[in-house]
Amino acid sequence: MATRIEARVLKGFRDYLPAQMISRSRAIQSIREVFEIFGFVPLDTPALEYAEILLGKYGPDAERLLYVFEDNGGRKVCMRYDLTVPLARVVAQYPDLQKPFKRYQISPVWRGENTSKGRYREFMQCDVDIVGTSSLLADTECIWVGQSVMRALEVPNFSIRLSHRKLLEGLGARLGGLDATALPQVFRTVDKLPSQGRAKVEAELREKASLSDEQIREVFAFLEISGSTDEILERLDGLFADSAVGREGVADVRALVANARAVGVGDQHLRLDLSIARGLDYYTGAVFETFLEDLPSLGSVMSGGRYDGLIGFFANRDIPAVGISVGLDRLFAGLEELKLMATRTATAHVLVTMMDERLGARYLDLARILREARIPTELYYQFDSLGKQLQYADKRGVPLAVIMGENEAAENTVAVKLLKEKRQESVRVEDLAAFVQRHGLVISGGTL
Amino acid sequence: MATRIEARVLKGFRDYLPAQMISRSRAIQSIREVFEIFGFVPLDTPALEYAEILLGKYGPDAERLLYVFEDNGGRKVCMRYDLTVPLARVVAQYPDLQKPFKRYQISPVWRGENTSKGRYREFMQCDVDIVGTSSLLADTECIWVGQSVMRALEVPNFSIRLSHRKLLEGLGARLGGLDATALPQVFRTVDKLPSQGRAKVEAELREKASLSDEQIREVFAFLEISGSTDEILERLDGLFADSAVGREGVADVRALVANARAVGVGDQHLRLDLSIARGLDYYTGAVFETFLEDLPSLGSVMSGGRYDGLIGFFANRDIPAVGISVGLDRLFAGLEELKLMATRTATAHVLVTMMDERLGARYLDLARILREARIPTELYYQFDSLGKQLQYADKRGVPLAVIMGENEAAENTVAVKLLKEKRQESVRVEDLAAFVQRHGLVISGGTL
Repeated sequence: MATRIEARVLKGFRDYLPAQMISRSRAIQSIREVFEIFGFVPLDTPALEYAEILLGKYGPDAERLLYVFEDNGGRKVCMRYDLTVPLARVVAQYPDLQKPFKRYQISPVWRGENTSKGRYREFMQCDVDIVGTSSLLADTECIWVGQSVMRALEVPNFSIRLSHRKLLEGLGARLGGLDATALPQVFRTVDKLPSQGRAKVEAELREKASLSDEQIREVFAFLEISGSTDEILERLDGLFADSAVGREGVADVRALVANARAVGVGDQHLRLDLSIARGLDYYTGAVFETFLEDLPSLGSVMSGGRYDGLIGFFANRDIPAVGISVGLDRLFAGLEELKLMATRTATAHVLVTMMDERLGARYLDLARILREARIPTELYYQFDSLGKQLQYADKRGVPLAVIMGENEAAENTVAVKLLKEKRQESVRVEDLAAFVQRHGLVISGGTL
Repeated sequence: MATRIEARVLKGFRDYLPAQMISRSRAIQSIREVFEIFGFVPLDTPALEYAEILLGKYGPDAERLLYVFEDNGGRKVCMRYDLTVPLARVVAQYPDLQKPFKRYQISPVWRGENTSKGRYREFMQCDVDIVGTSSLLADTECIWVGQSVMRALEVPNFSIRLSHRKLLEGLGARLGGLDATALPQVFRTVDKLPSQGRAKVEAELREKASLSDEQIREVFAFLEISGSTDEILERLDGLFADSAVGREGVADVRALVANARAVGVGDQHLRLDLSIARGLDYYTGAVFETFLEDLPSLGSVMSGGRYDGLIGFFANRDIPAVGISVGLDRLFAGLEELKLMATRTATAHVLVTMMDERLGARYLDLARILREARIPTELYYQFDSLGKQLQYADKRGVPLAVIMGENEAAENTVAVKLLKEKRQESVRVEDLAAFVQRHGLVISGGTL
């Protein structure tokens, strides 16, 4: 044997052990099901892209976090940073894809985040996007599917905060004299308000976006407009009386909120929040972020917006698009902190124990019967004491144990031990699968 | 807009567009379900590991294919090459994981393969492993779950080819005078027999493993022993009369075949094939590969074996382990070539069309009713002509279209168009979900 190598996970990364992964995997399946109920189709893109595909799309703050390297063939490559830019590449590369193209993708992405903030460098994104239509119904669908995902995952007290880049552009017009690079810098800086606080954001607006004190005051007066959605919209009507782009933003938001209400996304879950800007450069219309009201410091767990210019980087014309992305790992970290995550350590509902070496083939057969009935079943692999085997099932969280000794074998029965209830029943072998199913433990969507 | 960037996928990688991805995603779900029915629990490990974790485990031929680079913090890192070495790291790192540890993992891996052979550099592996027991029942479970996966995916004419490293060690003992590095080289070279042919393998045995012509003849005489499993075992009894390690191999294979027969893995699917060696260094016991009989040139679509020494690289003691891995992408490439893959281009079963601008909220409500009944439903986003909307559904492969005009709205009915059958029925709105469900189209395991 070689020198022993220290078993350690790479800095900034983590393993998902079964106790976390069982719930995580169930959640991913629920999300996939919601996406399909909304008629989205799956897409998968590579983990690596040519660097030129990803560079220059996200803005400088994000771009510093990209994993870039040379592959063995000397190509400059990037690890996937999000699922949106690869989608834009796909849409341009396969012009025959029928529009609107409604795709979902559930894949990990990699960002070299500062780990001191408790952030990880690999996380799972679950995205839906609708490409090829400017219809506000598509924006509505994204918010609607987002609410459905939160409900499917039984997330309590979430709010989807909505704003619109055109409202911020309207603000930019009011400020006057901003050059073309200043406005994206304002978006990126305002995006840091929840994480970095007002003082830092003020300083950055002054230094990076070259805003005057007067302009900064106006920015904050805007960001802090509050009240019900209808009240805020009324304030904006007044504010943007002279700004065409601002009025377009208000009209979009008003229509979007009306649609959302019509499909059951009410004001308790969808809030107009003018401080939402989104840090990425590519957004052009509605933008949204989702917070757990009981844990606002967590940051957004589901974000998105409209990005009508991005695909034009790759195609010979602009193609409108809108999408939303569930940040599953951050959401789960939040639910764990709120003690709302169930942990299971077993998928099996039955353990077939091994008692008598002469009955080896009978135990295999019991496992076969249960598994063919689609009942998740573990087989014990040794002739240990029954006590040890039952302890194993109990520690593992397997609720039932099947026991067959010489007498049971002769009568073609088994003893089924219900471990939590600390009792057992004698069951005929031909009734075993039905007995377990009657106890409601068979595998099927959601019961595990 | 910036200069246009050519939309292209990285050399050696590919996109899975919805027509392929819908089946692929269904297949992954079926595999996951089979794994859970066998009582395996899910694990996820990072895409990146410290390089020292992966280097030196697979052998030199494999190691050349690793993606190695420096991250932004100057750490030497590797992209995941398989799921087995990360599992070994996890088992050593978390000694409290209850044994036997039966985990599954479904994740992509990356290998810088020679793309001229039609191979891709990213592919999905679906692995189960049983760690912490030497019981042959664990080897049996791996073969059994493998057969169940092939059946769940409706793969016709597959054969799981079984051999054992101890049989090859017995052969090594018969050859005499091999040094410690020659035998692993023999394994790696023999592994290339299906892909490279006899002449190249002979040359490599001569050059890299320094075998004499006499020894090479003996190797081929061994590899070509054929017949039924029982006939081959009888031949090996004779051949290994003087080799203790060879006899251990024969005993293991005999017991494993008997177990497999007992659980319904018959000789039509499990064949003893002495030419199976597995190219990776870490195997120590049973080894298996799976071929589509109608497409043997494809190579193995599901492989595995026992590796009792690997975890010892990371832990302070050896921990026995056995596993099997489904190479989903190669399997699918084979099924595609055999024209056995269904292609679907839609997940939705219903399209809600838009006829009358005054009824906008009614269309949203129809979509809401269907989706709340868990029926995968698309909403059309524009007031195009009905013909164009029906054409869209037809081209997309959505079988039903729901139509509501002024009259239907007044009567609270819809027309449901069955596109394939080119007929339509009038259905009351309150009966719509039930009508679609009666047509058997509701989402649920496998019906999509």
